[in-house]
Amino acid sequence: MEKNLSLFYGLSILTAALAFFFAAYLYLWVKRQRVQNARILEVSQLIKEGANTFMQREYKVLAIFAAVMGVLIFLLLPSPVWHGNVLQNASMVAAYLAGTVLSAIAGKIGILVATLSNSRTAESARKGIKPAFLVGFRGGAVMGLLVVGCSLLGVAAVLMLTGDSTVLLGFSFGASSLALFAKAGGGIFTKTADVSADLTGKVELGIDEDDPRNPAVIADNVGDNVGDVAGMGADLFDSNVAAMASALVIAQSLTGSRYANLSMVFCYAILGLLASIIGIATARVGENSTPTRALNSSTYVTTGIFLVLTALATLIFDGFSWRVWGAAATGLMVGMIIGITTDYFTDDTKPIVKRVAHASESGAAFTVLSGVSYGFISALPAMVGIAVAALIAYRLCAPMGEGYAIFGIAMAAVGMLSIVGMIISNDAYGPIVDNARGLAEMGGLGEETIRVADELDSAGNTVKAITKGFSIGAAGLTVISLLGAFMSEANAALAKDGKPLLTGFDVMNPTVFFGILIGASIPAVFSAMLILGVDRNAQRMVAEIHRQFQSIPGLRDGKADAKPEYGRCIDIATTGALRELIPAGLMAILATVIVGFIGGPSAIGGFLLGNIVSGLLISLFMSNAGGLWDNAKKYVEAGNEGGKGSRAHKAAVIGDTVGDPFKDTAGPSINTQITVVSLVASLLSTLFVAFSIFG
Amino acid sequence: MEKNLSLFYGLSILTAALAFFFAAYLYLWVKRQRVQNARILEVSQLIKEGANTFMQREYKVLAIFAAVMGVLIFLLLPSPVWHGNVLQNASMVAAYLAGTVLSAIAGKIGILVATLSNSRTAESARKGIKPAFLVGFRGGAVMGLLVVGCSLLGVAAVLMLTGDSTVLLGFSFGASSLALFAKAGGGIFTKTADVSADLTGKVELGIDEDDPRNPAVIADNVGDNVGDVAGMGADLFDSNVAAMASALVIAQSLTGSRYANLSMVFCYAILGLLASIIGIATARVGENSTPTRALNSSTYVTTGIFLVLTALATLIFDGFSWRVWGAAATGLMVGMIIGITTDYFTDDTKPIVKRVAHASESGAAFTVLSGVSYGFISALPAMVGIAVAALIAYRLCAPMGEGYAIFGIAMAAVGMLSIVGMIISNDAYGPIVDNARGLAEMGGLGEETIRVADELDSAGNTVKAITKGFSIGAAGLTVISLLGAFMSEANAALAKDGKPLLTGFDVMNPTVFFGILIGASIPAVFSAMLILGVDRNAQRMVAEIHRQFQSIPGLRDGKADAKPEYGRCIDIATTGALRELIPAGLMAILATVIVGFIGGPSAIGGFLLGNIVSGLLISLFMSNAGGLWDNAKKYVEAGNEGGKGSRAHKAAVIGDTVGDPFKDTAGPSINTQITVVSLVASLLSTLFVAFSIFG
Repeated sequence: MEKNLSLFYGLSILTAALAFFFAAYLYLWVKRQRVQNARILEVSQLIKEGANTFMQREYKVLAIFAAVMGVLIFLLLPSPVWHGNVLQNASMVAAYLAGTVLSAIAGKIGILVATLSNSRTAESARKGIKPAFLVGFRGGAVMGLLVVGCSLLGVAAVLMLTGDSTVLLGFSFGASSLALFAKAGGGIFTKTADVSADLTGKVELGIDEDDPRNPAVIADNVGDNVGDVAGMGADLFDSNVAAMASALVIAQSLTGSRYANLSMVFCYAILGLLASIIGIATARVGENSTPTRALNSSTYVTTGIFLVLTALATLIFDGFSWRVWGAAATGLMVGMIIGITTDYFTDDTKPIVKRVAHASESGAAFTVLSGVSYGFISALPAMVGIAVAALIAYRLCAPMGEGYAIFGIAMAAVGMLSIVGMIISNDAYGPIVDNARGLAEMGGLGEETIRVADELDSAGNTVKAITKGFSIGAAGLTVISLLGAFMSEANAALAKDGKPLLTGFDVMNPTVFFGILIGASIPAVFSAMLILGVDRNAQRMVAEIHRQFQSIPGLRDGKADAKPEYGRCIDIATTGALRELIPAGLMAILATVIVGFIGGPSAIGGFLLGNIVSGLLISLFMSNAGGLWDNAKKYVEAGNEGGKGSRAHKAAVIGDTVGDPFKDTAGPSINTQITVVSLVASLLSTLFVAFSIFG
Repeated sequence: MEKNLSLFYGLSILTAALAFFFAAYLYLWVKRQRVQNARILEVSQLIKEGANTFMQREYKVLAIFAAVMGVLIFLLLPSPVWHGNVLQNASMVAAYLAGTVLSAIAGKIGILVATLSNSRTAESARKGIKPAFLVGFRGGAVMGLLVVGCSLLGVAAVLMLTGDSTVLLGFSFGASSLALFAKAGGGIFTKTADVSADLTGKVELGIDEDDPRNPAVIADNVGDNVGDVAGMGADLFDSNVAAMASALVIAQSLTGSRYANLSMVFCYAILGLLASIIGIATARVGENSTPTRALNSSTYVTTGIFLVLTALATLIFDGFSWRVWGAAATGLMVGMIIGITTDYFTDDTKPIVKRVAHASESGAAFTVLSGVSYGFISALPAMVGIAVAALIAYRLCAPMGEGYAIFGIAMAAVGMLSIVGMIISNDAYGPIVDNARGLAEMGGLGEETIRVADELDSAGNTVKAITKGFSIGAAGLTVISLLGAFMSEANAALAKDGKPLLTGFDVMNPTVFFGILIGASIPAVFSAMLILGVDRNAQRMVAEIHRQFQSIPGLRDGKADAKPEYGRCIDIATTGALRELIPAGLMAILATVIVGFIGGPSAIGGFLLGNIVSGLLISLFMSNAGGLWDNAKKYVEAGNEGGKGSRAHKAAVIGDTVGDPFKDTAGPSINTQITVVSLVASLLSTLFVAFSIFG
């Protein structure tokens, strides 16, 4: 064992505890803020209840899924229980379940805080932008700290207790299988509500987004929480765990080394969390500053602190390599660059958004066509960035010895995700202030407060583009290292069977090529299934809204005693999301299993590669095009190209509606789909080696 | 040399001559049909002139491009002229120029016949569906026969004269560099005109598609010819040449073999052309039949004859292998399957089109979302089909010896393209009858004639989906074999430099991976650039149409003496297409060169793979989604979901407008982009080996 590893296990647990304490402090701080407006209290209560209802019902479904998976894992993984080691299979199940539970807890608490912060942010917005920003941001930070704390604690505990990195993959699979459904389910819920509310409210009636007459308005606000807070939290929990797990699996395969590889992984994760805590503690809107600048500058502060701390650690500790530091720094820098280029394509002060808004004057077809085009182009810088980061990290670490090159890539992913605490805080801030804006309107807090809330909201949208770019980039690097992890798992199985080992996956091998083509199709089909799910679900909800407008007297005209039945809409979104989330996820998992049993490890290597490549491309395309359309619509609504009600506005609204499931349902779910598929492949590698037809 | 090779050279030239004679016979037959309607004569003359103007100006630009390329090739390829063989470089240039010239001739004559057939088809439609079908189909067949005859003649002549398959790649590059621009330029022209005509005519004024008041209506008809006839012909000429060339390059590398590999390639091409001639000669609408059935059944007849003839050849000739026959048959069968699944997604008698039409009732956003989703899903069967075909062909031929596996894949591509003569005939039939429909309307031939023309046109649309699926599938297999051709070229260069040979492209090698990620982005960026080109160009044309409606008195109301200035619209489309076509093509070529000089042959191997995979996915997605939207609109216009003028119809029109550049500009151009990039890579392999930074 590495000399200082116990130290780092200890420090991991301590740092996680510190993060939990700080999160608790922030939670209590947010809770202390007062809400007086009765209407806000009432509505925020409705949102909270709606979110809890959905989460409860979703977790019930996922518990069944996890139980079934648990049984399958016990029977089959890491090797069939009838000729394997019962204890090992049992610890695999335990790790798997721990992964699902921690993910669920992080999501649940995130929702709790978010639904607490929204009303308090709205109320604080009466006092100005500074206090309101602080409430919104700190609410989000609770989620950020929890997610990172849970992942660090979980990974350290599993490895400390079992010493077996394969079991760690089980933990990671628990996290990601839950994330897949949480992200997809939440994404379907939120966009069902959003799209239906927009269609019936803005388009048909010409009323405002958060008009309380609209029966879907509460569901829309609930959706922000279950999709963006809980779903996104589960997603980044999953990415973070997967990045650490794959780095640790590779580190453990580098035996007899003079480097402290495992220690470096933990040390970087610890320092990233510390840097995030400092960044979070110091974030505020200063004099002459704006919320956007506050969010961005705290990200930069966190990055700087992380780089300095890890450099110090490299100086201090034996067996820490500057090459690894370079790989991690490269990852982090490339993450920034991806974020900034994403911003260029989606920020409404930059030319692209303006062009799409201008194209809307010729009609919706041009909004769609130009958005699709720029969405495709926007993928290029990120793809190049990931490619270059992988190449640099690989070349930096290759001289350290056999197997280190792929470890370098894994550490680039760890580096990119090191500041994930900060990233999640920024990301969770978005739905909180979005809700706050709605509450300010529904509570009738007046023009000035709504304006403040609008400014907070717009910062959330801008920052979201960057954090999404970041998380897709990190997922890209993580899955490359998961491909490495898969190869080392497959080779372990091949060695046991006395078969020749894999040295790589040659694209000229038709079995690999077969896998590549099918793997590349999966993200396309997966995202299509989710979008169609939103589509079907929204049609149900629109029908319900029409029914309410027809059958509840006075509702359309806003009579005081005409109350819409918000609960029915929440119910439709919930039922529909749960019905639609399972098939897409299962399709991806089954495709992996089928390809594996047909073509064996070579086909799976190709499958994972194809999946990564097209997954990255499609998710970048969808996330960026969606963000672009959203901001083009906002740009028009701000009075450009004819402003609200113009031909351009109608077209921009159609673009935004197309973009909604792109950017909030399908795009970000693809990340998780890739991770799940990679982990399934690694976990089943023994079976694929033993039972494939052409393998 | 193989025993019977001279025989097959001779037969190739004879068969090509037979195809030319038959084409000449059909041309004269079409020409003999009479046109009496003065208005039709006038309009068809306008179309012809417009098409010729565009072709002349396009070929002028392309001649400059070809000349520059010719000089570069002479200086650099296959090796720098200052330390290479001047004669070899000169024959390379000659082959390159021959490729461009043959491609241009095929396009030019295709246009000539198509613009001749359209008026004659319209006139014959007065006599009923059977004679009109024959005129339209035989006009298209002239193009089909010419393209296949030219490619067979060219390939046989180049190989016979030089005996050097690298020079053959030069010929293929000539064909594909011209095709890239012809397809992209024609695609931009046709969709500029189509979109502008629809936007101003159908959407703004509510007048019919072919209403002669619309200044863009002639440009729209010209576009059908320059995009679908000339562009598509150049595209399939290119695919066909590339498939044969890559098979021949690989066959020539299989030295000292007991198989007659080169002979098999030529024999299959010859028999495919013969089968197509028989299929074309027998195609007609029988009793109780429809144009769609006539087109499809002649495709099946051709396929059957090809399979029987090649089986006979395998029995008769020494060194012909049943395994190769199996590979070719697999390719052909998979082509059929891809066609049929494509049809499922785009035929308006099948459920998918109906669903998209139904979704349109909720607004354009749902038309777009459901079309995008089904477009993505529709890529899956084709991707699986190509993957399975490659796997089967590889496994069939691998036992024949080292290097035969990849030859098997190349022969699957040759098999899939064997019936390309028939495919092109079907495909060129489409724009001819589309034009005929317009002419029937403009010539005032009455309801019944327009109904007949409509039926012919609708068959053209249905068949188009199948032929597009076919050509994308063939391109997929061809480029896999081009990847093999690239590796053998790169290894020849590496061997000369005394460097270690490539054994494949391992995705775990970060240089390969770097190439994959960038290669995968290129089709996305390429298609985006083309779509934005259409977008910009259409905005210019719409402005011009508005100007005409405002400044020409009585035009809007259809007064007899108010003539629109059709020429100005044609001019805008021409100038714009030429301005927009170069950057996208150059971008793809430059990206290849940059990646090659950075990462050397390994990076290029990855680059080509990424390019193939994402190119296939995106082009299948775009072609199918576009076809789906087109037919969903037609389905609504046929009176479903509220029919013309309904909310669903408005939404379906937006979907169709989005789909237009998808299916007729970007989607089908990606094929050519992939081929060009593969050939550039093969041709520059010597330079990449010598001068790359990280190679």
